[in-house]
Amino acid sequence: MKATLDPQALDQLFREARTYNAFAEREVDDATLMALYDLLKWGATSANASPARFVFVKSAEAKQKLRPALSEGNLEKTLKAPVCVIVGHDLAFYEQLPKLFPHTDARSWFAGNDAVIQTTAFRNGTLQGAYLMLAARALGLDCGPMSGFDNAKVDEAFFAGTTVKSNFLINLGYGVPEGLFPRNPRLAFEEACRIA
Amino acid sequence: MKATLDPQALDQLFREARTYNAFAEREVDDATLMALYDLLKWGATSANASPARFVFVKSAEAKQKLRPALSEGNLEKTLKAPVCVIVGHDLAFYEQLPKLFPHTDARSWFAGNDAVIQTTAFRNGTLQGAYLMLAARALGLDCGPMSGFDNAKVDEAFFAGTTVKSNFLINLGYGVPEGLFPRNPRLAFEEACRIA
Repeated sequence: MKATLDPQALDQLFREARTYNAFAEREVDDATLMALYDLLKWGATSANASPARFVFVKSAEAKQKLRPALSEGNLEKTLKAPVCVIVGHDLAFYEQLPKLFPHTDARSWFAGNDAVIQTTAFRNGTLQGAYLMLAARALGLDCGPMSGFDNAKVDEAFFAGTTVKSNFLINLGYGVPEGLFPRNPRLAFEEACRIA
Repeated sequence: MKATLDPQALDQLFREARTYNAFAEREVDDATLMALYDLLKWGATSANASPARFVFVKSAEAKQKLRPALSEGNLEKTLKAPVCVIVGHDLAFYEQLPKLFPHTDARSWFAGNDAVIQTTAFRNGTLQGAYLMLAARALGLDCGPMSGFDNAKVDEAFFAGTTVKSNFLINLGYGVPEGLFPRNPRLAFEEACRIA
């Protein structure tokens, strides 16, 4: 039987975790990004398909490529964030299944079935985006996720000529309280849940 | 600056977490389900829209309602699991925005825009499903997520006459090693990620 994590860990992951709009001027080094992936990659996906593809936008040059795709409200904070992660998914993810799910012909469940491909890539790539946010918090990082941007422009700037499509963005760094909004309420258990 | 969680916590959340197919014969009590929601609810969603709706299927009667929707490979293990969570999303989620995101008229961003409603509900409901799995592991529970089932049958059995649609299922309980598959490989950093 596994124990409940200590209260400080639950605070860091959930109860005191916030969507940050501003970050300390401290680099998130490449080793930290690799450690982040080495945690999030273990999260469950359907048939272990692992469709998410991540671009860690760090350089000034890459930030300028991202710039035209950002909505006005997300522009300045994203250009200033140490990293902006583009969470995408590969619509050809099933070509990896002979390696990722080797005990059966899982590729044949998807190949040629565009509706299942789209749904599976979007659902499981999104799960992996959430795993990234929780793994980031577990490593002491803070996140600022956003879906207010032009997906087609991001795809053109970062994924042209590939089968990868953008899903959402996550600013990443060491959060500072400036720009934090007051915490919004959540639905009560009875409003969101039912025990049947 | 926040610290990295201790290695045991990282193991429990990610590195040693597995998709369980069998669980101890131990109830997951209602207080634990409420504690689970009280963690996962803090996870970020777009405009705090919190579209996920969760049905915790525990009773024998509710399990029988779920039964016809399950694929053959998921049938027995789900009937035996202490809880099967139906992760759904409410396509009328934006009616809650005056409460959940009160400082602006966020409802108007969605009302009447079916494509944005569908994408936002699916993306953010899926994020919340991932938050549930990580929160469950943080509480010492184990998960067995599945998308192999008939969504229309689940919607008919559990969400008829509502605006809620099923997304995926998560068996929940205290995992036992029986039925664990050998761990499948993951993509290397270079295969799934790029630093730009």
